[in-house]
Amino acid sequence: MAHYKVILAYDGSEFQGYQRQATGRTIQGSVEQVLKSLGWRGKAIVGAGRTDAGVHASGQVISFDLEWNHSSLDLRNALNGMLPADIAAQSVEQVEADFHARRSAVARRYRYRLFCSPIRDPLRERYAWRVWPQVSMEALNQVASYFVGTHNFSSFGSPHKSGGSTIRNVMASNWRNDRDELVYEILGNAFLYHMVRRLVVFQVDAGQGKLASGSVLDLLEGTAEDLVQGLAPANGLSLVEVVYPPV
Amino acid sequence: MAHYKVILAYDGSEFQGYQRQATGRTIQGSVEQVLKSLGWRGKAIVGAGRTDAGVHASGQVISFDLEWNHSSLDLRNALNGMLPADIAAQSVEQVEADFHARRSAVARRYRYRLFCSPIRDPLRERYAWRVWPQVSMEALNQVASYFVGTHNFSSFGSPHKSGGSTIRNVMASNWRNDRDELVYEILGNAFLYHMVRRLVVFQVDAGQGKLASGSVLDLLEGTAEDLVQGLAPANGLSLVEVVYPPV
Repeated sequence: MAHYKVILAYDGSEFQGYQRQATGRTIQGSVEQVLKSLGWRGKAIVGAGRTDAGVHASGQVISFDLEWNHSSLDLRNALNGMLPADIAAQSVEQVEADFHARRSAVARRYRYRLFCSPIRDPLRERYAWRVWPQVSMEALNQVASYFVGTHNFSSFGSPHKSGGSTIRNVMASNWRNDRDELVYEILGNAFLYHMVRRLVVFQVDAGQGKLASGSVLDLLEGTAEDLVQGLAPANGLSLVEVVYPPV
Repeated sequence: MAHYKVILAYDGSEFQGYQRQATGRTIQGSVEQVLKSLGWRGKAIVGAGRTDAGVHASGQVISFDLEWNHSSLDLRNALNGMLPADIAAQSVEQVEADFHARRSAVARRYRYRLFCSPIRDPLRERYAWRVWPQVSMEALNQVASYFVGTHNFSSFGSPHKSGGSTIRNVMASNWRNDRDELVYEILGNAFLYHMVRRLVVFQVDAGQGKLASGSVLDLLEGTAEDLVQGLAPANGLSLVEVVYPPV
C-alpha cells in the first residue's frame, strides 16, 4: 500500500462543494468514485480545504492510500482519463505515510477575482464577481492590511467545529490589479467557514465608501456578537495553493 | 419605429449557435424572445456573424426595429435584466434605418485561444483549446502570414449559400503570446462556414511539425478538391469585433 498526495484543479460551478454529501455532486464524491474503480478501499480521502459550493480550485490537495503497481505519472493519467471534465489531477506524488493533506498543511492561499462594471459580462462571470459602483483600490488595500497578523476573526466566520477557536493567523492579505480585474490574495494558516468571502464583501463595502475602515479594528478584537453582513459570491473564489513544510 | 444596433457578448457553451432553429437554445432565439416581450413584432433580427454551437462572442452585432419610448441606455438595461446570464448587451445605439448588422459590416475579427499542456485544466478549457505536444510559435506565425490577402479559401470552408463564392479577403492573421496562451487573431471581410476553426487546426498541425508549410500555397489556390482535415474545437473561438464604415 502506498500513500499519495494529489494536487487537484476544478471548476466548482457544478459542484455542491468539496465535501461528500448524501446527495448532490461533490469533489470528494467524484474523486472517491474514480479511486474505487482503481481498487481504492478507504473510508474517505483527506482534502486540505473544504471549499464551498461554487468555489473553484487550482491547488486543492488530497491524500489517500492506494495499492497501485504503476508509476505516479500513470496514476495521474488514469485519474485524468476517468475524472469528469471539470476536475483534473495536476500532479500525483507518492509521499510518506504520515502525510495528511489537511493536518500537515501549514497554510492555504485563496484568490478572489472581481471586476467593476455596470454591464453583465457572460464571458467572465463564471470566475469573477462583477461589482458596481467602482471600488477604490486604495481603500481595499488599506483594509486588507489590517487582517495581517493573529486575530480573532469571529466576526468574519464560524469555526468548522462548534465551539472551536476563531483565532487565525494571516500571513499575507493584499489586492493587486490584473488588467481590469482586482485580485485579492490571502495566505493564512487556516480559515473559518465563509471567512474569505466575508472578508471580501467587507472590503468591497469599504472600497465603495460604505463603511469607515476604522471599524475594522473593533471587529478584529472579536468582541462583536454578530457576523458581518453579506457574503461575496462563491464564483470569484479559488483555493490556489496549500503549503506544507519542506520534507 | 426606431432602428437599433446592439453589441452582444455571450458564452456560447450552452447554445446551439447563433442562428434560430426549430428546437434548441440559440442566441437569436433568446434575444428575439426578450424583444417580443418588449413589443418587438419583427420577423427576425439581423446578426453580423452566424457563430457555431459552442462559439463565444464579445462583439457580436445585431440590428432590429423597435418601437421604444425610452433611451438607448434604458433599452440596454431592460435587455440585460431579461436576457439569460450567458448573454448580455454590451451597448445599444440608435442607428440609421439603412444600417444592417450583416450587410453593412466590412470586416469581422475572430480570436482563437489555445494553451499547450499534457494535463487537463478545468478552469481554462471552457474558453481555450488544450493542445499537446507543444506548438512552435514560429511555425504558427509562418503559416498564418500566408492567409493574408485575397485567396480562394475553398479548402478551408464552404460558402454559407451553396454555390457561393469561396474567395475571401483576409486583412490580418497572426499569433501572439498571452501569458502561457497562444492567441490567434484573424480579421477578414467575411468567413466561410467553419473557416476559422479549419485554419486554426491546420496551423496547429504545422506548429507540431505535422505538415510542410509549403503545402499552404497549393491549398490557397483553391484547386484542392477536399476540405482540410479536422476542426479546432468551438470553445476556443470568439467573435470579438464587427467593423462598420464610419458614419
